[in-house]
Amino acid sequence: MKYNKKRSFGLVKTQFVSFNKPFVLSSGHKIPSLTVAYETYGSLNSDKSNAILICHALTGDAHAAGYHNPDDRKPGWWDDMIGPKKAFDTEKYFVICSNILGGCKGTTGPNSINPLTNKPYGISFPIVTITDMVRVQKMLIDYLGIPYLKSVAGGSMGGMQVLEWMALYPDLVKSSIVIASTSRLSPQAIAFDAVGRNAIISDPAWNKGNYYKKKKKPDRGLAIARMIGHITYLSEESMFKKFGRKLQNKKLFSYDHSIEFQVESYLHHQGKVFVERFDANSYLYVTRAMDYFDLVVEYGSLEKAFEKGKGKTLVISFTSDWLFPPKQSLEIVHALQRVGRDVTYCNIESPYGHDAFLLEFCQITRLISNFLSSLEKV
Amino acid sequence: MKYNKKRSFGLVKTQFVSFNKPFVLSSGHKIPSLTVAYETYGSLNSDKSNAILICHALTGDAHAAGYHNPDDRKPGWWDDMIGPKKAFDTEKYFVICSNILGGCKGTTGPNSINPLTNKPYGISFPIVTITDMVRVQKMLIDYLGIPYLKSVAGGSMGGMQVLEWMALYPDLVKSSIVIASTSRLSPQAIAFDAVGRNAIISDPAWNKGNYYKKKKKPDRGLAIARMIGHITYLSEESMFKKFGRKLQNKKLFSYDHSIEFQVESYLHHQGKVFVERFDANSYLYVTRAMDYFDLVVEYGSLEKAFEKGKGKTLVISFTSDWLFPPKQSLEIVHALQRVGRDVTYCNIESPYGHDAFLLEFCQITRLISNFLSSLEKV
Repeated sequence: MKYNKKRSFGLVKTQFVSFNKPFVLSSGHKIPSLTVAYETYGSLNSDKSNAILICHALTGDAHAAGYHNPDDRKPGWWDDMIGPKKAFDTEKYFVICSNILGGCKGTTGPNSINPLTNKPYGISFPIVTITDMVRVQKMLIDYLGIPYLKSVAGGSMGGMQVLEWMALYPDLVKSSIVIASTSRLSPQAIAFDAVGRNAIISDPAWNKGNYYKKKKKPDRGLAIARMIGHITYLSEESMFKKFGRKLQNKKLFSYDHSIEFQVESYLHHQGKVFVERFDANSYLYVTRAMDYFDLVVEYGSLEKAFEKGKGKTLVISFTSDWLFPPKQSLEIVHALQRVGRDVTYCNIESPYGHDAFLLEFCQITRLISNFLSSLEKV
Repeated sequence: MKYNKKRSFGLVKTQFVSFNKPFVLSSGHKIPSLTVAYETYGSLNSDKSNAILICHALTGDAHAAGYHNPDDRKPGWWDDMIGPKKAFDTEKYFVICSNILGGCKGTTGPNSINPLTNKPYGISFPIVTITDMVRVQKMLIDYLGIPYLKSVAGGSMGGMQVLEWMALYPDLVKSSIVIASTSRLSPQAIAFDAVGRNAIISDPAWNKGNYYKKKKKPDRGLAIARMIGHITYLSEESMFKKFGRKLQNKKLFSYDHSIEFQVESYLHHQGKVFVERFDANSYLYVTRAMDYFDLVVEYGSLEKAFEKGKGKTLVISFTSDWLFPPKQSLEIVHALQRVGRDVTYCNIESPYGHDAFLLEFCQITRLISNFLSSLEKV
């Protein structure tokens, strides 16, 4: 057993639920049926008041905590945060995480079989939005018989889903935790997404999205998209500390076309391992959903988006995050304050850039534990 | 005549000089012969004391000012700065600009014919460094019969060449102007370069660098490299002001796979026009030369690099430049001060990011005019 039972939730299985009725998307397009992949940790209490929904980021999935197999080398993506005595304490809370609509880890997305054609959707899959993702999560919550959520929490694109939950289902969200997120991406962030998508569709192996049965997949394009993304997840400072200008397994330049710097090697590695776990079409859909997300356009203003909700909100940002910069978190905080909402904000001093939401778990744990405890007292 | 004669140097021709002897590079590799493309503006005075060398950046060329043809829509890349009564006043100075070694605009590079094989070098062209580029410029200066340079000036990678001139030929550089540059790239900047190169070599049309006689060139890969680069040349602020989240020729999202945002359309356009004017192999070589450049590694310290020179230096940076951030200019300034050099530093308040060195010409003109005038008085 590779994992430490005392610190981990332990073994867990991804579960699936299918909704065999048409689902109409924000775009007006329809999907004939839906499957949602999800995991749960802990138990729903008798009055169904302890459910917490965790929303994952761009490349996450339903496997947020614990291990699928005793031999797994790595636990779920937020295992540091979810488990017994952790921030999302599974001895107290019933924690749920589901794969997003448009994803590639069990919930219906472009790599799913279209029941009308018996072939993978590919890019015939309709465009999805963060709102669509949240509406699918709501269907899951209903299916699980949960009347309301004690809290909804997520970082990065997960935070966008939290914000959408607050606006779309104000009565069901008793509290919310928004980490390293934004009510709308900056044009710079859209630009990085656009170049990543361009790298994928420029790969001849992408083949207009029809590659699922081909031997060659658009791995090169997807790897480049991931490398671009990865630079934006780190900060200049953390790259400097981690790599500096150090060379890769050599003391002098090779003066050839090989990899010279550690930072180059690191990015190559990140690209390489990513293509083994993610679907290129899904990357197109999910980054586009992020680009579209704009609470101001959707509700008229941030104030209007937040005015119907009542619960407390915890907003966390990181000083060195330049992809979802602190000022974007502050916009959310100020809008919540203007409509009289109870909001706690912390801008954590961290060198890790956007990735801090997956790394600074000691500080985030303290904030979230205190925040969730403060709800008990009410 | 599209140009205004009063404000432009006017018509100019690119000239070429060939050096038919082997040139040994920093790597130890050899090129059997060399051609250098260059332009000159103004006249060398009788005591040969008014020559100023302009060093171009990554995608620049020898055509720094004036027009090649009366019908040209655009003048040379730094026409705002070079001409009668401009910062580099061609009524006073003999201004020279040459295409860099490894470039693709007339000076020997990977797209040149290897005289030993009668085929384009492709990636058999040896790796070049900033030092190699500067040594080739020195050959040109010697060929032109110029004993020393009144000034050497350049922005971005052009500034790297200026710094290398200061270190390599301290007696020949009477003054120097370093704009938006650095003594060594940050790992973040290396990372962006590495992903750009990866996009090129991942394009099947790159064909290990052998595409010169093919119909299909690695345009897709090169366009992606350019798009990545372009994001780093702008600032978050300038992108926000220029594009915000505005849609491209539409009021509502199309919810399809077309271009939705103006910023996406802009980047696509930048990629598209770039491949018409630049060679993909050259992009690999020149970005690598930038990555290699490190005065500290080359000379032991910045102080050692600068201690032999005597002339004045003007260092200019831009507040919103995050690719070559002001702190890197300050490192140069402080090292010059520590070895007792006369240095003037200005960090220009500008929203335009790294591109400011091509845009803030009013402010740069004032600084450079004053700087060059101050040399006259000595």
